[in-house]
Amino acid sequence: MSDQTVFVLDPRLEGDSVPVCDLGLCTVRLMNDARFPWVILVPRIAGLVELIDLSEADRRTVTDEIDRVTRALSSHTSAEKMNVAALGNMVRQLHVHVIARFAGDAAWPGPIWGVGTAQAYVEGDRMERVDALKAALIGA
Amino acid sequence: MSDQTVFVLDPRLEGDSVPVCDLGLCTVRLMNDARFPWVILVPRIAGLVELIDLSEADRRTVTDEIDRVTRALSSHTSAEKMNVAALGNMVRQLHVHVIARFAGDAAWPGPIWGVGTAQAYVEGDRMERVDALKAALIGA
Repeated sequence: MSDQTVFVLDPRLEGDSVPVCDLGLCTVRLMNDARFPWVILVPRIAGLVELIDLSEADRRTVTDEIDRVTRALSSHTSAEKMNVAALGNMVRQLHVHVIARFAGDAAWPGPIWGVGTAQAYVEGDRMERVDALKAALIGA
Repeated sequence: MSDQTVFVLDPRLEGDSVPVCDLGLCTVRLMNDARFPWVILVPRIAGLVELIDLSEADRRTVTDEIDRVTRALSSHTSAEKMNVAALGNMVRQLHVHVIARFAGDAAWPGPIWGVGTAQAYVEGDRMERVDALKAALIGA
């Protein structure tokens, strides 16, 4: 898309994940990797790369939405530790990872990025997780 | 230290880094690894593990301080990409990493944690970086 003023989800993020819901500023998606309960938040603003590209008001909103998503995923999974990160070395469109971690998971205690190969969810499990997160986030 | 109400910097974080300065809520330290311009922020509140453990007011302050540190490090290094993350799988005391990344650095484009072995700074280089960050953050 050549119009830089219109937000379009990066095709790689889109291909690696499925939609959960839209919050006020961010679209929330579940990464399609059954090894880790792993969600990304993508602010629906064109052209963002870094967290410091956000206006102060938008930064506060994004931070509040990260907080909501982290609480929802932590509570849904009873995770041992939550990992929250904005990296973007490969996909530049600003996106924030929220991951529920467990001692003994496929990357523990290291970070999850670049470890092994994603294992797609069985459809029923994926829908169950998406529905649980959606219910926790927007009550739907 | 048995008093859980007094903030004490985790000894592992302390050993891996050197002080830069204190902001309103966080202490800012430079990781002693010359391979990456890498700073951590540690909120000076006892008992914190997760970002969601912060009160709403403290979360906003921490977010503002992350923003200040990210801008300072990005500008000081002319980084290609900034990485911002709260992981804590190994050291539980809440700390936020802010790292300046470059195509071709020792971990690019992967994350830096757990890659190779830290290379301590030459003292002059470390002091120069600490002074530059301190000047950008608190003008001292």
